[in-house]
Amino acid sequence: MKASRYSSPPRIPLDGRSWPDATLSAPPRWLSTDLRDGNQALSRPMSPERKLVMFDLLVGMGYKEIEIGFPAASRDEHDFVRLLIERDLIPDDVVISVLTPAREDLIEATMASLRGASRATLHLYNATSPAVRRLVLGVNRQECKDLAVHGTHLVMKYADSLLDGCDVRFQYSPEHFNDTELDFSAEVCEAVMDAWQPGPDRPITLNFPTTVERWTPNLFADQIEWMDRHLSHPAFRCLSVHPHNDRGTGVAAAELAMLAGAERVEGCLFGNGERAGNVCLVTLGLNLAAQGVDPGIDFGDLDGVRRIVEECTGLAISPRHPYGGDLVYTAFSGGHQDAIKKGFDAMATQAAVAGRDRSELPWAVPYLLVDPQDVGRTYEAVVRVNSQSGKGGAAYVMSSRYGMNLPRGLQAEFARLVQALADDTGGEVAPERIMEAFADEYVVPRVPSFEAPGAVATLYLDGEPDGADWAGTVASLRSALERRGLVARVVRLMDGASVRRGEEITVYAECELDGDPVWGVGIEPDVCAAALAAVGSAVVRARREGSPTGGEDGAGDGHRRRLGRPRLRRVMAKR
Amino acid sequence: MKASRYSSPPRIPLDGRSWPDATLSAPPRWLSTDLRDGNQALSRPMSPERKLVMFDLLVGMGYKEIEIGFPAASRDEHDFVRLLIERDLIPDDVVISVLTPAREDLIEATMASLRGASRATLHLYNATSPAVRRLVLGVNRQECKDLAVHGTHLVMKYADSLLDGCDVRFQYSPEHFNDTELDFSAEVCEAVMDAWQPGPDRPITLNFPTTVERWTPNLFADQIEWMDRHLSHPAFRCLSVHPHNDRGTGVAAAELAMLAGAERVEGCLFGNGERAGNVCLVTLGLNLAAQGVDPGIDFGDLDGVRRIVEECTGLAISPRHPYGGDLVYTAFSGGHQDAIKKGFDAMATQAAVAGRDRSELPWAVPYLLVDPQDVGRTYEAVVRVNSQSGKGGAAYVMSSRYGMNLPRGLQAEFARLVQALADDTGGEVAPERIMEAFADEYVVPRVPSFEAPGAVATLYLDGEPDGADWAGTVASLRSALERRGLVARVVRLMDGASVRRGEEITVYAECELDGDPVWGVGIEPDVCAAALAAVGSAVVRARREGSPTGGEDGAGDGHRRRLGRPRLRRVMAKR
Repeated sequence: MKASRYSSPPRIPLDGRSWPDATLSAPPRWLSTDLRDGNQALSRPMSPERKLVMFDLLVGMGYKEIEIGFPAASRDEHDFVRLLIERDLIPDDVVISVLTPAREDLIEATMASLRGASRATLHLYNATSPAVRRLVLGVNRQECKDLAVHGTHLVMKYADSLLDGCDVRFQYSPEHFNDTELDFSAEVCEAVMDAWQPGPDRPITLNFPTTVERWTPNLFADQIEWMDRHLSHPAFRCLSVHPHNDRGTGVAAAELAMLAGAERVEGCLFGNGERAGNVCLVTLGLNLAAQGVDPGIDFGDLDGVRRIVEECTGLAISPRHPYGGDLVYTAFSGGHQDAIKKGFDAMATQAAVAGRDRSELPWAVPYLLVDPQDVGRTYEAVVRVNSQSGKGGAAYVMSSRYGMNLPRGLQAEFARLVQALADDTGGEVAPERIMEAFADEYVVPRVPSFEAPGAVATLYLDGEPDGADWAGTVASLRSALERRGLVARVVRLMDGASVRRGEEITVYAECELDGDPVWGVGIEPDVCAAALAAVGSAVVRARREGSPTGGEDGAGDGHRRRLGRPRLRRVMAKR
Repeated sequence: MKASRYSSPPRIPLDGRSWPDATLSAPPRWLSTDLRDGNQALSRPMSPERKLVMFDLLVGMGYKEIEIGFPAASRDEHDFVRLLIERDLIPDDVVISVLTPAREDLIEATMASLRGASRATLHLYNATSPAVRRLVLGVNRQECKDLAVHGTHLVMKYADSLLDGCDVRFQYSPEHFNDTELDFSAEVCEAVMDAWQPGPDRPITLNFPTTVERWTPNLFADQIEWMDRHLSHPAFRCLSVHPHNDRGTGVAAAELAMLAGAERVEGCLFGNGERAGNVCLVTLGLNLAAQGVDPGIDFGDLDGVRRIVEECTGLAISPRHPYGGDLVYTAFSGGHQDAIKKGFDAMATQAAVAGRDRSELPWAVPYLLVDPQDVGRTYEAVVRVNSQSGKGGAAYVMSSRYGMNLPRGLQAEFARLVQALADDTGGEVAPERIMEAFADEYVVPRVPSFEAPGAVATLYLDGEPDGADWAGTVASLRSALERRGLVARVVRLMDGASVRRGEEITVYAECELDGDPVWGVGIEPDVCAAALAAVGSAVVRARREGSPTGGEDGAGDGHRRRLGRPRLRRVMAKR
C-alpha cells in the first residue's frame, strides 16, 4: 500500500482555539438516525414491523428527535412515514425527521409524505465538497450554493402548500462537510439562512456530517469551532454533527465537536450505519453519564436494547463494544480480579455503614468504568476465571456466587488449585467447577474422630453465630478444641460474613499440625460443629499425600469426590 | 442510572498546549500485545500452537516489538517464552517483551524465563493511582514509588546474574497512569530513571496506560504533553502509550497522544484486549496510511490477517470494524453508489491516460476512505444493491461485473425496475439477479422483422467495432436503419467501451416510436446486427403493455423469459 496515494490533513485556520479547555456539562440534543442512515446500510433493510419495534425502542429510551427515513427513495420508506402518521404513533414530545436531496420532485414527494403530521423536521442536503461538486455533480461553487438555496425555498413553498397546520422545522446539511472548504460551507449556510430567515419561532439546525471520516478528531473540532465563530444568527441556529466512524474515531469526533460548540449529535444505537457506521449513541450517552453528566436517555436495560437492535439490524454487537459488549464487564487477569473484589468489598462496607444502597454511592471499583448494575448487567458476569486469573478471580466467584468469604491465605492456596485446573483445560473455569473443586479439596464429608495434641488453629467464621454473644462463642469454640488437645490461637468473623444468615455456618481453620500449615473447612448448622469439622478436615488433609488433588484419606480420591457431591449440592442450592 | 455517582474530569495544568497544532508525519514504534494483554482477555486463552500462528503473523506483518506474555503468571505463559527461545523462532530484528509486577519472586521467575534469549524487553509495572494505592495495595506514595525503584534494581540485579549475554531492554509502566496524579507519575518515573541510569546504550521506555479509559482523549493528550515537558533524559527515554477502549475513544487517545509527544504505541490487532479492548493496531496503522504516512506495517492482505486473528482469539470481527469489517467497503445508498461509480470511472480514465495502474494514482473515490485494493479487498464487494440504492448501484454492478456501460437514461429507467425488485424482496438484490432482470427486460431473443417509418434512434455502442474506422461504422449503421425507415440521430461510443474487446458488441438504442421514448438493447457479433437487434427490441417492447415487467410480445411473458435465458447465460459467462 503506497501511503503516498493519500493526502495529508488540511490546516484549519483557527487562532486561539478554545475547545481543548472546555468541559462537557450538559447533554446535546440527540437525533437517532437508526431508521434512516442505519437502515439504509443494511443488506436487508428493516421491514415495517421491525421499524416499528425500533421506533418504539427509541421513544422508550427517551430520544426526542428521530429520523425515520428517506421517503422519496422507495415505496417502503414512504409507506413507513405514512404508517406512523396515520396510526398516530408519534408521541407529542417526539419530532420525526425526514431526509431529502435538494431536488424539486423529491422535495415535493418528501413533504407530501408528511401530510397529517403535527410536527416534523425536513432535512435537506446537498453535497458541497470540491471533489463531489466536480466529479459527481458537475457544478461550480455558485451553482452548488444555488441548489441549497433553491431547495430551501422549495421547502418553504411546499410547507405552505402541502403541510398546513404542521409545525415544520428545518435542517440543512452540507454533505461531506469535513471535506468542504470552510469558507464555502459557511457561505452556503449563510445563504440558506438568508432564505429561511431564522428567528425566535423559526430556528434552523445546521448539521455537519463527516460523511467519510478522514482526519484526526481534533481537526473536526477545529472545523466546528471555526463555524461557530463565523456563522450569524447564533441565537436561532443549532449546530449539529453527524460523525461517521471510518477511522474509528467517531465517538471522539462527536465529543470534541461538542467541546467546540456542537449542541446536537446524530448517530445510531451501537454504531450502525454506512460502512464503519454512524457514531454510537450508546457509547456517547454512557460516556457522558460516566463523567457525571445525565445524558437524558435510559440505558438501564442495555442488554434489552442490544437484543432489539440485533434483531432489527441483523448485525451482532461485538463482544468488545463499549458498555454493551459481552466481555466488557469481565476481567480474566488475576490482578484485575483481585482489585475488583476489593473494590466491591469496600463499597459493600461503605454502603452498610451509610445504610444506603450501593447504587447511590460514588462508583469506585477499579477496572470497571461504570457499575454494571447501572446498565442492568449482573455481578456474576463480571469476573470469569481462566489460567491468567491468579487468586482474585476464584475468591470473587466464591464470595459473589456462593457467599463464601475465603481468608487471604486460603485464597492464595485455592487459587493454585484453580490455576492448575485452568492450565489443564486451557480455558475458562465455570463458577460451578470452582465450587466443586473447593468442596472436593477442603470439605471432608465424614470427618473421623481425631485428636491433635499441641496443634494450634486460627478459626475464621463465615456467617454470624446464632443467638450467642461473641465472647460466649469464642469461649465455646476454645473449649471444644481444647478437648481435642488443640489451642485456638485466633477466632475471627470474616468481613462480609454478618451480611449473610444461613441455616449453616462455615468455619475456615488454618492449622499448624506438626509445624506444617494446613487449611480445612467445615460447614455445619452449629458453630462448634463447624469448627470441629474444619479442624478435622485439616487433619485428614494433612494425612493425604502432597498433591492438592491427590487423595489418601482411607476411602480414596474417587470415593471422597462422590461423598463430597451431596454436600456440595446442598451448599450450591442454598446460596 | 444516577450520573451523579460518577466524577467529572480533572483539570490538566497545561499552559499553551502545542499538540493541537501538530501533525503526524512518521509512524510510532509499534508494540503488539496480542499475545499478552490480548490473550489474557480471552475466555479461552490461545494454545501454544495458536500463539505461534499469531507470533508468525505479527512478525510477517512487520511488527518489531512483540509482548509475548506474563511468564510468572502461569505454566502456559512461561512455556511459550521458552518455546520461542529454545526453538530459536525470534528473528534478529524482533524484540520480545515480557511483563512482570514489581515483586522479587515474580521478577526473578520472569527473568529466568528469558535465559538464552539474545535480546528482550523486561516490562515492569506497578499501580500508581490513588484509588488502587489505597484500596488494593494499602501503600502511600513513598511506598508506591519504592516498589517501582526496588523493582528496577531487581531487574538490573537479575539481568546481571541470570541473563549474561542477553541485550536486556527496560520498560516501566505506572499502571492506571491516566488516574494517577501527574506530579506523582513524573516523580515515580524520575526515580525509576535514577535507578536505571538511562544513557546512549541504556535507553528506557516509559509507558503510560489508560488502564481504564475514563476521559475524552484530549485530556490524555494533555497528560502526555505534560509528561513530555516535565521528564528528564529526553534523548534516552521513549514515551509510550497503551490505550484501552472503555469509552470507545482508544484510537483517538493514541493519535492525540502521538501529536502530544508519544513515540510508541502498544495495542492489539482488531482491538482485542481486556474488556472493550486495547487500541486497534490495524485502525491506527491504516489511519496513518490514509493520511499519507507509511505505517511500516503490511496490511496488503487484511482479510487474511482478520481470519488468523479470528481463529486465534475465537472472537469475530464486527462487520463495521474500520478497514477490516465485512461491510466497510459497501455502499447501499443510491447516492453513494452513483458517486462511487463516477469516482472509479474517473480514476480508470485517468489511469488509461497516464498509462499507469490505478494503485499508483492519488486516491479520489467518494465515500471510500481508502482504495479497497490497497488492503486486498475486491471491487465487486464494494457496491451492493438494495431498496435504498437508486440508479447508481445497479449501473455500477452492470458495469463492473458485466462490462456493460449503460447510458444515463437507460440507467434511470432500469433502476426503477431494480427498485421494484428490491421492494418486493425486502433485501439485497444479487448481481446475477440484476443482470437477469436486465436481459429479461431489454434483450429480446428473436427480434421479428420490423419497419418503423419516421422513427428516430440514438445509438450507444458498448465495445469498439472491429476493423472499421469510426466514420465507416456510423455510415453503415445509418444505412442499415434507413432500410427500415428509421433515422439514426446520434451514434456514440460509450465511455469505457474501448477498454473492452469481446466477441460481441452491445448496442443500446434510445428510440422515439410514435412520439414515445423506448429503450432497446442488442448484443451481436456484428455492430450492424446489434444495432438492428437493439432497435427491434425497442419496437417489440413498445408493443408490450405499460408495465416494465408485463409482456405482450406474442409469445407471452413466460415464454420471453425462457427464451431470454440462453443468451443471458452466454453474456454472463463471457464477461
